Amino acid sequence: MAQIRPILDDDIRDIYFAPRIYGFPLNMSRMMPGTRKEGTLSSSFDHDLESVRCYKGDVLLEDCDIRAEYTVTEHCALYRFTYPDRECAFLRVSVKEPGHVSFSDGLVHGFEEHFGIRFSFAAVFSEEPAGVEDTPDGILIAFRPGICLTVKTGFSLIDEDQAMQNLKNETDGLPFDTACEKAQAVWDEALSRIEAAGGSEKQRRIFYTALYRVCQRMINISEYGRYFSPFDHKLHSDARPFYTNDGIWDTYRGAHPLQLLLEPARQSDIIDSYIRMYRQCGHMPTFPALEGSRPVMIGKHTTAMITDAYIKGLRGFDIEEAWKGMVHNEEKMTKLPWTLAPVNEYDKCYFEKGFFPALPEGCPESLPDAHPFERRQCVTVTLETCYDEWCLSRLGAALGKKEAAKYAARACNYAKVFNQETGFMSPRLADGSWVPGFDPKLSGGQGGRAYFAECNSWIYTLHVQHDIPGLTELMGGRDKLEAYLDRLFTEPCGTSKFAFLGQFPDATGLMGQFCMGNEPAFHIPYLYNYTASPWKAQRKLRELMRLWFDDTPFGICGDEDGGAMSAWYVFSAMGFYPTCPGRPEYDIGSPIFDKITLHLPESKTFVIEADGNSPRAKYIAQARLNGKEYGSTRLAHSDIVSGGTLWLRMSERPNKYGCT
Amino acid sequence: MAQIRPILDDDIRDIYFAPRIYGFPLNMSRMMPGTRKEGTLSSSFDHDLESVRCYKGDVLLEDCDIRAEYTVTEHCALYRFTYPDRECAFLRVSVKEPGHVSFSDGLVHGFEEHFGIRFSFAAVFSEEPAGVEDTPDGILIAFRPGICLTVKTGFSLIDEDQAMQNLKNETDGLPFDTACEKAQAVWDEALSRIEAAGGSEKQRRIFYTALYRVCQRMINISEYGRYFSPFDHKLHSDARPFYTNDGIWDTYRGAHPLQLLLEPARQSDIIDSYIRMYRQCGHMPTFPALEGSRPVMIGKHTTAMITDAYIKGLRGFDIEEAWKGMVHNEEKMTKLPWTLAPVNEYDKCYFEKGFFPALPEGCPESLPDAHPFERRQCVTVTLETCYDEWCLSRLGAALGKKEAAKYAARACNYAKVFNQETGFMSPRLADGSWVPGFDPKLSGGQGGRAYFAECNSWIYTLHVQHDIPGLTELMGGRDKLEAYLDRLFTEPCGTSKFAFLGQFPDATGLMGQFCMGNEPAFHIPYLYNYTASPWKAQRKLRELMRLWFDDTPFGICGDEDGGAMSAWYVFSAMGFYPTCPGRPEYDIGSPIFDKITLHLPESKTFVIEADGNSPRAKYIAQARLNGKEYGSTRLAHSDIVSGGTLWLRMSERPNKYGCT
Repeated sequence: MAQIRPILDDDIRDIYFAPRIYGFPLNMSRMMPGTRKEGTLSSSFDHDLESVRCYKGDVLLEDCDIRAEYTVTEHCALYRFTYPDRECAFLRVSVKEPGHVSFSDGLVHGFEEHFGIRFSFAAVFSEEPAGVEDTPDGILIAFRPGICLTVKTGFSLIDEDQAMQNLKNETDGLPFDTACEKAQAVWDEALSRIEAAGGSEKQRRIFYTALYRVCQRMINISEYGRYFSPFDHKLHSDARPFYTNDGIWDTYRGAHPLQLLLEPARQSDIIDSYIRMYRQCGHMPTFPALEGSRPVMIGKHTTAMITDAYIKGLRGFDIEEAWKGMVHNEEKMTKLPWTLAPVNEYDKCYFEKGFFPALPEGCPESLPDAHPFERRQCVTVTLETCYDEWCLSRLGAALGKKEAAKYAARACNYAKVFNQETGFMSPRLADGSWVPGFDPKLSGGQGGRAYFAECNSWIYTLHVQHDIPGLTELMGGRDKLEAYLDRLFTEPCGTSKFAFLGQFPDATGLMGQFCMGNEPAFHIPYLYNYTASPWKAQRKLRELMRLWFDDTPFGICGDEDGGAMSAWYVFSAMGFYPTCPGRPEYDIGSPIFDKITLHLPESKTFVIEADGNSPRAKYIAQARLNGKEYGSTRLAHSDIVSGGTLWLRMSERPNKYGCT
Repeated sequence: MAQIRPILDDDIRDIYFAPRIYGFPLNMSRMMPGTRKEGTLSSSFDHDLESVRCYKGDVLLEDCDIRAEYTVTEHCALYRFTYPDRECAFLRVSVKEPGHVSFSDGLVHGFEEHFGIRFSFAAVFSEEPAGVEDTPDGILIAFRPGICLTVKTGFSLIDEDQAMQNLKNETDGLPFDTACEKAQAVWDEALSRIEAAGGSEKQRRIFYTALYRVCQRMINISEYGRYFSPFDHKLHSDARPFYTNDGIWDTYRGAHPLQLLLEPARQSDIIDSYIRMYRQCGHMPTFPALEGSRPVMIGKHTTAMITDAYIKGLRGFDIEEAWKGMVHNEEKMTKLPWTLAPVNEYDKCYFEKGFFPALPEGCPESLPDAHPFERRQCVTVTLETCYDEWCLSRLGAALGKKEAAKYAARACNYAKVFNQETGFMSPRLADGSWVPGFDPKLSGGQGGRAYFAECNSWIYTLHVQHDIPGLTELMGGRDKLEAYLDRLFTEPCGTSKFAFLGQFPDATGLMGQFCMGNEPAFHIPYLYNYTASPWKAQRKLRELMRLWFDDTPFGICGDEDGGAMSAWYVFSAMGFYPTCPGRPEYDIGSPIFDKITLHLPESKTFVIEADGNSPRAKYIAQARLNGKEYGSTRLAHSDIVSGGTLWLRMSERPNKYGCT
């Protein structure tokens, strides 16, 4: 789920005003220091971006000559504004409709509603206001000139009293600088779980920025034993944290697997939260947000996320209840894109024939639940559904479910949309015939949405994460797979670049028809491990990391998507990647650091040493796992979590390492 | 003239195979070392890009394990291939049709034709071939395994004998390593004309890469006293170098003005070349190429380039003949985009009414010479034509031409397409009425081409380089201009980003409706110098340089366009820019280096010192020119070329410096 985004002043400003402590949503943009004149806030962002960190910010607001600093606690934001002594100091507190803000007894409190959810806040000042006046959208508070004003703001999803309570709990007597230190300590701990040694400073900056981003989701909305759930709009007490804000289509691939490695206990809370959501709203959300379950993207990959965790040994949640939710999603919910509705004709075709049906060219949509813009995406939906079913078959087998065999059979349905004549995954009409005149590069309209999700068949033909041997056989053998991959990375657009990107705006980070910028491509470079030339994976991965990731505001080549893009980088930079979540193993790529140390729970460490590593020496010439010669291109999850060392000798020349 | 480009393996490979010595086109991609197997060339580009320099390259061809080095002389390329000793060494020499290659007496010679122009070559080897065989597209030469083979190739636009002669003149007895040193010395001299001290290493890398690119055009195609002209397809003898390969629509803005500062004698030869082109083909080309005069883009800005040089004092060419060519272009050649043809109804409307006419919505094109894709671009053509006419008025006045007054009057025609009601430059029908329902953001179809060139009216409304006071008055005063600029940088797309970029694919480097990636926007940040807030120019320029220029393969945010984009960076990084070529002055921005030293002809130096400069300290607080307080935001060309020092005290806080 990628989208090209323009860099606007406002985007950058958002970065400033959104330092975030690991866990809770802080809407910090309502406090606006300035002069009496409206709309004068302007930050000097082209240098201060350098100093934006996870735990604090420091920016000169140039138009009004105010230094603005800010930091965070779990449910609060702290600001420190240093005003010039030329003129009266003002602080504007504005809210959007529906909302309210008022001032009494030295306390500002109020709320805003978004999607029917109330975001409450309460704020206190270190200085006595000189006056307060109402404005059309809030209040304007005056202070004497030249002050250094500390503002502490508590937030709550419950109510204003709780916002006040959060403020008290976390900031009473807490000096601004101490808050900075405490916030830094939280992030230091989070980021120190992976130690990267060697590589360039730029590579380390990209790497830790990426790790930081992966840590930003999901969000814990528990407030001292209670939480307001947007899934049933009720207040609940909780014994363990409640997490929301995720985009599973994106994050099942790398973000959740990475979090599972680094913080399994938190991942257990997250899965428990999903189970609570299922109880509260009747289905297992795939895009749970602050406002509830959103009908976004396709697939029911919460299944993949939970299966991956369970198969890798995670416990601490009600897997039987989770199973029910997954089966409900699979059997009772329609697979129509961007839709939350019961099964319909679209799904019945799949249940009967094993593929989701395309509409004939030019035929108006007959399904009332179909999203007019998102359309049917039927080939992708088939591929992603049978992947979910493969996950169900694995989990079902582990749980001793009789349905496991049914799902294992359905998991092969991907072959039903593979057209042997063209060698591409292709759409079929309900009668089983291939859509005539289908072009794997340009058919399907905007984003290919008649048949695919945001990318074309060049990408989706490789979207069989769970059965690469089966796909390889369909394609005619591993040399054919290799030739396809080689061609993918150089295949031209077949039309002008702007027409192509106009049609496929999410296919950013283009390299031939491969697009680094969107999730369906993430596992593709690793598929070289399943050919006679794993060294091509190593080369391509180094190239992709070097070309498409940077330590500037452009940083990444597509949407971050809640840590999904960054997780790809973190894994790939470490030298391994979960090609198929649900399978407890990783494909080995090419680490960019000399040494990676993963600090795992129970004081275990897993070390990857890349001996002789350099930008040129990117090929693995030899490998040893815990001192023993290692000949595989894959790494078992159990080998990582039990601790140990993968030693790699790196070379400038490709070799046949790992070819089997 | 910008276009988003994908990064493909092949693009990168082109970079390797195109090191170029200052001056002559070397087509180096025909030599392909490898194995007998076809299509195996593959370079290890993600590290070697680092080592690509202007004078040599060094790359490991990984598929076949061959080290390939290359360097250049003025008309020759030298390769050194180190083959593995495992198997027979091969060198493939292929040509495309129409073309020919043959081998005799140890010499390879041949040619290829492109656009009717013959590119001839001749090559010799340091080792005896073991065998030669014909292939469908050339020859395959075998050598014994493990050799280190030097290949010297001469090129010529005249014939194969001249290619051989060039090879002899430049490489006889020349060792490969000595050739590298000589090439390096040429570039060292070119790049040392500007010394940049301070700033980050990254900034210096970007800066010198940009300067290198500006130096790559135009191309001298003289060969030892003779040249083959693609403008009359005849062989000429020459007393001075003959240059071609330019895109004036792009390069008149910054590339030519920069070259004029650094190498006025070469610029004089360039203008003389344009005059020879005019004599040879009957008009003054705006996009002279290796194949002759190309009908590309709009405007007749060779006029601007020559006027700028003449007004700044450059001599050494037949200005009277140049004047004739410019007037011919202006009066006899149609201004229809991408067209080389005589004047027609389109131009008559301008001559009579002062604007180029739009077609009514949905009306089929009536002008036979109109380009079906490029359409009329009538508002832009009006704006760019009256700029050229302003140039003619200035040059005409300097030459004592009676037409000067006529052109001075026509130079005001931009006002005729300014719609006072909307505040935007807008299209008019031939009857003088405004095109109904015109939207300054989204009207005009692909690239806005019904009315504009590649960008929309948000950009083109500011495209009156030659009369900023007049434009400001039209807009309602300088506060209105400032408000327009402020809004330009934050104004959203008005549609989805992909729809916007699908319609305006050249509007890259977007920041609001401003686009750093295309030439019509280049002067816009400097327009803040004409408001009460020059500090906003300083802020925006630093921001643009930081966000949109990098030292990675992505480097720039739009087409390089023959040095145009890079020249903007070189000027802006130095702290000044030629907002209006034809006027002998520059707008002051914000230098990113502590000290810039321009080494000018006649041993003059001009120094810009930025005291206290840092990423934060980007605002000019105080200025002195040659020790005297300096209160202007503009710098005279004469002050630069006579040598001296501009001293600036930089500050973190904006001030009112230069506001008049």
